[in-house]
Amino acid sequence: MTDNRRMKIAAIGIDADDTLWHNEDHFAATEDAFADLVSTWVSPEVARAELLRTETSNLALFGYGVKSFTLSMIEAAMTLSDGEISSSDLAILLERGKEMLERPAHLLPGVADTIEELASSHPLIVITKGDLHHQHRKVEESQIYHWFRSVEVVREKDVATYAGVLRRHDLRADEFVMVGNSVKSDVLPAVELGAVGVHIPYQFTWAHETVHESDLGSHTRNVEGASFWELSSFRELPALMDRLQK
Amino acid sequence: MTDNRRMKIAAIGIDADDTLWHNEDHFAATEDAFADLVSTWVSPEVARAELLRTETSNLALFGYGVKSFTLSMIEAAMTLSDGEISSSDLAILLERGKEMLERPAHLLPGVADTIEELASSHPLIVITKGDLHHQHRKVEESQIYHWFRSVEVVREKDVATYAGVLRRHDLRADEFVMVGNSVKSDVLPAVELGAVGVHIPYQFTWAHETVHESDLGSHTRNVEGASFWELSSFRELPALMDRLQK
Repeated sequence: MTDNRRMKIAAIGIDADDTLWHNEDHFAATEDAFADLVSTWVSPEVARAELLRTETSNLALFGYGVKSFTLSMIEAAMTLSDGEISSSDLAILLERGKEMLERPAHLLPGVADTIEELASSHPLIVITKGDLHHQHRKVEESQIYHWFRSVEVVREKDVATYAGVLRRHDLRADEFVMVGNSVKSDVLPAVELGAVGVHIPYQFTWAHETVHESDLGSHTRNVEGASFWELSSFRELPALMDRLQK
Repeated sequence: MTDNRRMKIAAIGIDADDTLWHNEDHFAATEDAFADLVSTWVSPEVARAELLRTETSNLALFGYGVKSFTLSMIEAAMTLSDGEISSSDLAILLERGKEMLERPAHLLPGVADTIEELASSHPLIVITKGDLHHQHRKVEESQIYHWFRSVEVVREKDVATYAGVLRRHDLRADEFVMVGNSVKSDVLPAVELGAVGVHIPYQFTWAHETVHESDLGSHTRNVEGASFWELSSFRELPALMDRLQK
């Protein structure tokens, strides 16, 4: 992207969790409560590590989302306490999961205005991983729902997924921009297809989403002809879209 | 449908759970295990009623699927035992849920051959409610996956949902046939849009899916010009498709 070839932008794909609104910090707060509940048996570090191990081991069976996370918390609490945790403490974990599902989306700074501005010139598509019901509900109940042409909830964000989304919307990869907080999920697979990738880091990254610098290959920002854009705020998107089209 | 006007069939939509494979009996077996676990406190009838009440009350928050069902079982067990159930019994409920997720799809009689025959002449689309990850996984791991043009996992099966599926696939309602075991979810909304509805009853119906005869209005089979077809077996579908096109 260091060359400034003018491109046509036919649509912009935008990740939801930690791109449009806070998400990972809700998980982090619930993980703190989880660590607290099992503190009779293990340290917070061990609690978090076992929870992540359980989530990862259940991922193929459960998929992503808060319901999966809640079931994994209950399972990990049983494991860490060697079955000694009380059922009322397990019920607290269930209640915490329900609170996460109930919480309305809390938009990141500048998102509401920027989405409105972007939508005035480009079709916008939410592309998000996770639970079908919860993700649709979060978008629909947010104040920015009406600015989106479509909401795509997908099981995994890989090259095949993005190819499918582009096919369904009759879009060419080289006319598509994908924006998100995860280099691994939002940027690399879209860039591999030939789209423009835009990375807007969030304050927290889920351990499962971390990409090691060595995996990045030629996609790092530091490598010559850096292959994706990095912005520090969602507010910078309209200016970048202008630049790409000029 | 009593008139025999020839129609063009551009695509056939097919429900999955209890239409292509057994589903409700897995839930019923798990409900038996649930009733057994709380039998210290309540009768099986009360246990089942409270579980259904909990599922229904969580539906807007959780959506459909086995993970939602598992979380509702844990919640209902806490309620019914007034918090006295042991954490190891709650862990059994979690384990039961995981077993349901792990179980491979068990096709109903005649489905494998009939799907192959139907796919030779018509594009087939799976249209199923439930959990995005679990439903995709069940279809993909089944022996009939390659016969489907597309798999649509939806949050609810209402008129708007079917209209959206038809739009995405560029299909006209009057050239579309929808097949399923639920009059409420698979037949009535598709028929309302102008599609042909085909009902193939399953041996069990989830209480939530039951339609009272009075809700059926002009869609009952008994009313003059009965508005949908009823077959006793999936095997009868190719003959019906022939008849509709002749």
